[in-house]
Amino acid sequence: MQYSDNFNPTLSNDKVFQNIIEEKKVRGYYNLPFQDTTQIKEYAKTVKQKYIVVIGIGGSSLGTYAIYKYLKHSRPLEKKLYFLETTDPIDIRSKIENVDLEDTLFIVISKSGTTVETVSIFKFLHTLVKIDRNNTLIITENDSKLNSYAQIHGMKTFEIPKNVGGRFSVFSAVGLLPLAIVGIDIDALLGGAQEIHDAFFNKGEEYKRIMKKARFFVEFKNKFNINVLFTYSSRLEGFNKWYVQLWGESLGKIDVNNSNQGLTPIGIIGPIDQHSFLQLIVEGRRDKTITVIKVENFNSNCAIPDVTLEGLEELDYLNGIEFSDLINKQADATIEAINNLNDIPCDVIVIDGICERAIAGLMYEYELLTSVTAKFMYIDAYDQPGVEAGKIILKEKLKQEKS
Amino acid sequence: MQYSDNFNPTLSNDKVFQNIIEEKKVRGYYNLPFQDTTQIKEYAKTVKQKYIVVIGIGGSSLGTYAIYKYLKHSRPLEKKLYFLETTDPIDIRSKIENVDLEDTLFIVISKSGTTVETVSIFKFLHTLVKIDRNNTLIITENDSKLNSYAQIHGMKTFEIPKNVGGRFSVFSAVGLLPLAIVGIDIDALLGGAQEIHDAFFNKGEEYKRIMKKARFFVEFKNKFNINVLFTYSSRLEGFNKWYVQLWGESLGKIDVNNSNQGLTPIGIIGPIDQHSFLQLIVEGRRDKTITVIKVENFNSNCAIPDVTLEGLEELDYLNGIEFSDLINKQADATIEAINNLNDIPCDVIVIDGICERAIAGLMYEYELLTSVTAKFMYIDAYDQPGVEAGKIILKEKLKQEKS
Repeated sequence: MQYSDNFNPTLSNDKVFQNIIEEKKVRGYYNLPFQDTTQIKEYAKTVKQKYIVVIGIGGSSLGTYAIYKYLKHSRPLEKKLYFLETTDPIDIRSKIENVDLEDTLFIVISKSGTTVETVSIFKFLHTLVKIDRNNTLIITENDSKLNSYAQIHGMKTFEIPKNVGGRFSVFSAVGLLPLAIVGIDIDALLGGAQEIHDAFFNKGEEYKRIMKKARFFVEFKNKFNINVLFTYSSRLEGFNKWYVQLWGESLGKIDVNNSNQGLTPIGIIGPIDQHSFLQLIVEGRRDKTITVIKVENFNSNCAIPDVTLEGLEELDYLNGIEFSDLINKQADATIEAINNLNDIPCDVIVIDGICERAIAGLMYEYELLTSVTAKFMYIDAYDQPGVEAGKIILKEKLKQEKS
Repeated sequence: MQYSDNFNPTLSNDKVFQNIIEEKKVRGYYNLPFQDTTQIKEYAKTVKQKYIVVIGIGGSSLGTYAIYKYLKHSRPLEKKLYFLETTDPIDIRSKIENVDLEDTLFIVISKSGTTVETVSIFKFLHTLVKIDRNNTLIITENDSKLNSYAQIHGMKTFEIPKNVGGRFSVFSAVGLLPLAIVGIDIDALLGGAQEIHDAFFNKGEEYKRIMKKARFFVEFKNKFNINVLFTYSSRLEGFNKWYVQLWGESLGKIDVNNSNQGLTPIGIIGPIDQHSFLQLIVEGRRDKTITVIKVENFNSNCAIPDVTLEGLEELDYLNGIEFSDLINKQADATIEAINNLNDIPCDVIVIDGICERAIAGLMYEYELLTSVTAKFMYIDAYDQPGVEAGKIILKEKLKQEKS
């Protein structure tokens, strides 16, 4: 008897770990937590402008926004950060109204250097303010055409390493530079990511839970094709958006068997979405896994006062409760209600507080989870060939119109 | 031979339409476009405060936010509208920083009158400012405990009719009152909804497409369990959130056969999410339908200038293009790329412009689509029994802590 096959067996945890170790030698994001941040911090100190405007889309803005949104109301920050990311004309105009263009540093971020949205908005800014090396900073690949432009105009540039993909670039200059400028402690960010790095690569608890989770997601991908992140803090709204890109764009791929694969990410926020999406989770089709994320310590002093509303005395049991306690109890009640159903996979992550360490650790953990899940699925987490066709069609349409 | 069954056959369009006609006699939302708005407009004229703060969650805020967000940058509005909707303490504090509490009208909205989030925040406001009939307006059911409170304090109230569910209440006082106060033309809103109402009930084009779409969604619900709304304007961000509640909470139900049903809504925004979610649509698993929504006329004067960036000359084909044209061409390119794949169901809605008529018509159409889809699915679109368990657990947890 002769025999051959092209079956791809379910990989063991050890094999996946070995693959990740190999990948770590070539994919730059894994080691970003250990970079030297001296240059970034020194440049940040020199920035005089009050307003910082990032011009970038997708991986060039989502991670930065996630961290900024998480931390910005937890302390007074030195500068204000805005993001120009869409070609919606009303959005561009309304955002620009918020800033004093004469007191703004523009940070143009594009890995390829030729992103249509980014270049279009950057061109548009030329009609509003003089753009030069004094108010413009470029973050791109070393040999991109945007880099050539920067060189010609003597503009300061920072590099996006070729082996760091856009959606894995938050801990490169892409995220660190704007965040350092507005006064966020980027070494504390990297410290939070390092902790998760070390725990994973030393096979600590993080290793075990990431492996278990990724394996579960892949094993049950046909039953549970939707992964819901239910974050109990409005501070995590940006994190949810970043997660949606990371998970959707990394795992939505054609696999080695030429089959369309993908786990669909959804980010919702508690308690707001208890009044929107929870009904679907509880009574809807069993096609979702749920990950609840809680913030242990909001470090906030804000309680429901001892006020009785006549007619509404029945709600006096709320009196004296801290809002931070209320929101966490709301999360616990949701988790208990889901677990009582016994047929919805649900896990819970508690992060320490509203600080650099906590958000960076969470983000690095999700990067690792994405890489590991991709390995189990036999797909490449780092490319995005599916969006190229649309770009080519757009270019044709625009060129046609002009001729 | 004897025989009996409990099979529920796929309903014909005529039968569903007949059911909707019957339902229209008892469900109030269908006829809201034809209400008399005199009282609302007269009250709105009397409001002197500059800041309007809605305290409400879910159906008490999402629809209002959707319309406000769509229109607010299209013209100068008389007043500023804010929403307090979450128990996140940092969110509450940061939003309150934006308003002058002494120059604010608080609109407390709760259908039941005992919503935990709403009452908690309303109580908290008592520690910051004197709450009385001069700065507080209540919108609730006529016989709720919140209404009793309002009566005791001589506060002005507006009614949420008992037969209008929260997520279908945008065209009741819930939405119309705050919107009228900030200067939005509520009669034009209702006019937009009326157009769709008439076209549907007179069996025009809207009838045909709603029936076709709902039938398709239900027929293929096991294959395409995810419905993606891909809106090409950041103005529609609030609409997307409103849609997620409407679709998720209305259709996520246990059906007549005691089986968990539900179509999962996702709202994404172009072109931003071309850089996030599009890869998953194009190469991911075939489990999604896509509805693209375009805005025909942004009524905005904002073009890419004739600027050449040295080194980036290859992108000069963008020069001279209006951003409104660019974003619509981006939508067209995405649609074409998806359609070229031949295995992803995709439909396209084009709305006229950034005006009351357009957004209200779109929202009313989605309400009808939700009702019709629920009829095909043999479920009740208007209740939400799945969220009760969590509420009971929360109450127990909070009462336990206090004793």
